[in-house]
Amino acid sequence: MRIAFLGPEGTFCQAALLTMPLDAGTETVPAKSVQAAIDLVRDGDVDRALIPIENSVEGSVSVTLDELANGVRLVIVDEVTLPVRFTLMARPGVTLADVRTVASHPHALAQVRGWASENLPDATLIPALSTAGAAAALSVEPTPFDAAVAPRIAADHYGLDVLADGIGDTEEAATRFVLVQRPGALPAPTGADKTTLSLYMRQDEPGALMAILNEFAVRGVNLTRIESRPTKRVLGDYFFSVDVEGHVADARVAEALMGLHRVCLDVRFLGSYPRHDGKAPVLRSGVTDVDFADAAAWLDRLKESGT
Amino acid sequence: MRIAFLGPEGTFCQAALLTMPLDAGTETVPAKSVQAAIDLVRDGDVDRALIPIENSVEGSVSVTLDELANGVRLVIVDEVTLPVRFTLMARPGVTLADVRTVASHPHALAQVRGWASENLPDATLIPALSTAGAAAALSVEPTPFDAAVAPRIAADHYGLDVLADGIGDTEEAATRFVLVQRPGALPAPTGADKTTLSLYMRQDEPGALMAILNEFAVRGVNLTRIESRPTKRVLGDYFFSVDVEGHVADARVAEALMGLHRVCLDVRFLGSYPRHDGKAPVLRSGVTDVDFADAAAWLDRLKESGT
Amino acid sequence: MRIAFLGPEGTFCQAALLTMPLDAGTETVPAKSVQAAIDLVRDGDVDRALIPIENSVEGSVSVTLDELANGVRLVIVDEVTLPVRFTLMARPGVTLADVRTVASHPHALAQVRGWASENLPDATLIPALSTAGAAAALSVEPTPFDAAVAPRIAADHYGLDVLADGIGDTEEAATRFVLVQRPGALPAPTGADKTTLSLYMRQDEPGALMAILNEFAVRGVNLTRIESRPTKRVLGDYFFSVDVEGHVADARVAEALMGLHRVCLDVRFLGSYPRHDGKAPVLRSGVTDVDFADAAAWLDRLKESGT
Amino acid sequence: MRIAFLGPEGTFCQAALLTMPLDAGTETVPAKSVQAAIDLVRDGDVDRALIPIENSVEGSVSVTLDELANGVRLVIVDEVTLPVRFTLMARPGVTLADVRTVASHPHALAQVRGWASENLPDATLIPALSTAGAAAALSVEPTPFDAAVAPRIAADHYGLDVLADGIGDTEEAATRFVLVQRPGALPAPTGADKTTLSLYMRQDEPGALMAILNEFAVRGVNLTRIESRPTKRVLGDYFFSVDVEGHVADARVAEALMGLHRVCLDVRFLGSYPRHDGKAPVLRSGVTDVDFADAAAWLDRLKESGT
Repeated sequence: MRIAFLGPEGTFCQAALLTMPLDAGTETVPAKSVQAAIDLVRDGDVDRALIPIENSVEGSVSVTLDELANGVRLVIVDEVTLPVRFTLMARPGVTLADVRTVASHPHALAQVRGWASENLPDATLIPALSTAGAAAALSVEPTPFDAAVAPRIAADHYGLDVLADGIGDTEEAATRFVLVQRPGALPAPTGADKTTLSLYMRQDEPGALMAILNEFAVRGVNLTRIESRPTKRVLGDYFFSVDVEGHVADARVAEALMGLHRVCLDVRFLGSYPRHDGKAPVLRSGVTDVDFADAAAWLDRLKESGT
Repeated sequence: MRIAFLGPEGTFCQAALLTMPLDAGTETVPAKSVQAAIDLVRDGDVDRALIPIENSVEGSVSVTLDELANGVRLVIVDEVTLPVRFTLMARPGVTLADVRTVASHPHALAQVRGWASENLPDATLIPALSTAGAAAALSVEPTPFDAAVAPRIAADHYGLDVLADGIGDTEEAATRFVLVQRPGALPAPTGADKTTLSLYMRQDEPGALMAILNEFAVRGVNLTRIESRPTKRVLGDYFFSVDVEGHVADARVAEALMGLHRVCLDVRFLGSYPRHDGKAPVLRSGVTDVDFADAAAWLDRLKESGT
Repeated sequence: MRIAFLGPEGTFCQAALLTMPLDAGTETVPAKSVQAAIDLVRDGDVDRALIPIENSVEGSVSVTLDELANGVRLVIVDEVTLPVRFTLMARPGVTLADVRTVASHPHALAQVRGWASENLPDATLIPALSTAGAAAALSVEPTPFDAAVAPRIAADHYGLDVLADGIGDTEEAATRFVLVQRPGALPAPTGADKTTLSLYMRQDEPGALMAILNEFAVRGVNLTRIESRPTKRVLGDYFFSVDVEGHVADARVAEALMGLHRVCLDVRFLGSYPRHDGKAPVLRSGVTDVDFADAAAWLDRLKESGT
Repeated sequence: MRIAFLGPEGTFCQAALLTMPLDAGTETVPAKSVQAAIDLVRDGDVDRALIPIENSVEGSVSVTLDELANGVRLVIVDEVTLPVRFTLMARPGVTLADVRTVASHPHALAQVRGWASENLPDATLIPALSTAGAAAALSVEPTPFDAAVAPRIAADHYGLDVLADGIGDTEEAATRFVLVQRPGALPAPTGADKTTLSLYMRQDEPGALMAILNEFAVRGVNLTRIESRPTKRVLGDYFFSVDVEGHVADARVAEALMGLHRVCLDVRFLGSYPRHDGKAPVLRSGVTDVDFADAAAWLDRLKESGT
């Protein structure tokens, strides 16, 4: 098993990957970008890839949504959520007082601005392609800057010292990552699952979003995320990226998907997988698998014998 | 084959029955009331019964709705719509100038009031149990009144003369009759069918009617009739009697029925049968049987192989 | 004050009228039919009329709905609900054993069939134009039949003896009557009101009923009754007769009515009036008058100063 | 008039600003980040700020949505859409053959990857804080890299030569920018406007999104964008950022906003402003200002005189 992650070594994405239960012998492979990680999977160079999908500091989530929405279809088979915690790190021997230049991804620099202006008021902030990349650059002398803002895992990986930990201006942030692979057998339903879809609308149909949501609502399927995304053709031509509670093996989700298949221009199924938080959905009455089976049995009797 | 109808001989209901294609050897049986006709079917004394369900002059439609909604379940297998046309009839030899007393069902008397006040200003109007019953009473001398308002068929049946035809104040009225039998094999779908249901609500659930209608709307099933009816227990405790376009063999109707089965306290299926007017439904895109089959095949592939 | 009621003297309708608080000097006037009662109001011959609207034994409710839906507009200003209780009555001196013939309105005869077959198995049932009319016919000798099934009030009125009371097969029945008058100042809201409407649809618009109900639902207005009624032109061309909780002076009802005015071909307002049962509606959050006023004040600030 | 824009000099944002009609004497001020631009407005240091809101290459749109959704409220008073067109630029005298290192914002580098691998296969790509920042760094010798990918405006501004134009892998991309200011008098409605809102849900209310969308749908207000955004507290606690067609001065939008105010925990009004494309909404029947005024006049008559 080979799994790509959004690299380089030492990213939040790698940190997230290491929290997952991996089989012995699993090889992890850093990829230069979300697109590169996805291409590795599509090309069969790796079996799976872990990439950020929500609220990442490594780069826009939009890339992930759009990459999954276009090209050869992949499916999500697992997700993991990791709190975002920034660490200031430098080569052994360097102290906070020595730091004149600090590098990191522009988004990370933005999120430690408060701490930096208080603790390193005179330091220059330098952009890098990624948080981990900034840390990696410190592993070879002469270093291009004095310190890096990166996940703590990067300090371990590149043999750096931690100068300060938890320096983000908002400590409650978290990033959600998804594990994608080529389509195949689906993960077994656990009772606490999510399903991710891209829904493409027919042209010029006002009220279309209401109609789409109604397909879920009438079967008691709750949404946990929705975003309208441009289809890359013209601004104002949208698709919807949604996460819903439940697994395609659940009758209510299955019927909703068939309904969407009938009303949408296209439905792209991006996987059913266990929720990271293990929270089972609160279902309204009448939408369990037993309820669906009872209704089907009742209808069959009606159609066969009228009774 | 024995078919009961709302009698006595000479009713609009009998006239409607005679417009239907009946097998040779079919025996038609007058029943004293809608309830009596239904009881004959339930008891197995006849195979079927034709009874008014909408806009009747012979008696309240509510009786039919309520009788079908309660007791042993019957199903509708056909419907027929007949224009309501009133005829004034009397024994041979009696002329309009001789008429001092006119009998009919109270509803029919109400509907010829305009004509009567102009053409028979001095005549007394006398109530009868049915229009045909009034005509029947003229068949034996001495007659209890001079003339009857009844369907034209009654004049033929009882050997009476027509004094005036088409005397109703509103000539556009029509009555819809339904043919009911004990549950069994359903009539084959024709592409222009109706399905009749009684829908019972769960207690204390506001917005319940919206939810019910939504089960139809989301599958593109149109309603042609809806009535809230008290459940005979207390005023304000209702069920809904509805007619929808389509046959339970149509995928969109089948899925809607299963949805109703899950959200309603009870769904009473009262039959799928050809529309009298032969009007096929205008379907929105995505709700034909082919659309449903395509969606199911797509979902099966997703669930089996993820592709 | 002159108030018409569905007569003759001794009807359930009169009994219902006598349960209402009437000003001293109020004159009550029997009318021959619902239509006649309504015409008396429209012509200014009386100030108001009490007529049955739901589940009556005196005649079809449809007449009331249709009369109010067409012609010069009247409004409902009050309602009263009366349990339906049948009484067998005869001239003083006549005993149950003497009874060979029993008269009443066909609907009432239908509802006492069970009792009659047990207690008067050999008696002939004779139709009459109304229950009270049957009782009235016993006031003059020689009587055309031996006994009448009518409201108890008829026995008092016509000086008859009660032979048996509460003889209906289902004792839970009740009839709702409404008091109508020409449009004018509306009854003050009481906090427990109803509003009655006739809603006419634009032609050929599927999903129109959903749209109509949604106008109520989005403002938290609950329905207590809905019926589709033919528009008297052709079968299948419908309007909806509905009762909703609340008074047109309630902001949520007012906004719903304006919404209906915009989406319907026509909205006929048939009055806001106190509920007979005094039951205040259970409102979901956000739809009280205070909520509407707060929202309007907020919007005004936004539009005036953007704050 | 002082207007901030997402700087430094030479960004797409500045290019967009220069397409807008600005009063003579307007001073434009580069800001280091979206947050900095917004702070300048909130602190009163500038009158307005132009910032990217959709599909930007300069940085995540999420920042804009989240900044506007929190803190002191600002309102959008105009929008502008600019095609994204990348230009390769260098100091005068430098030719394509000389280029060994190319700098730009990581997102821009990602979008010219195809062109670069074909035309500059051996060049090293270097991250910068912004596209314009990379161009600016070429204005002083010795330059830290040979060329920059930036908007064409940056070449003009920094006295650079254009080596190649239109080098993005997808040329159809566009960025939408919004002009924000402190709340005050709203822009006059033009008949082709947009309104932007942040909608906060009450806790634990499934179906809440449907309810919100219904507030729009029932008044015929179309959405052009919707995104669920975490509320910065915990993942999974969302608000909705939406754009709708129309101006708060339009009756249908006003009533929808009042409805949202009643059902949402909070509604943050972020402005009504002219659409950049000037496209007037296609309205369904019954939702123009005239329709609302007619309905209100009708209701007033009903309430005042019952007629």
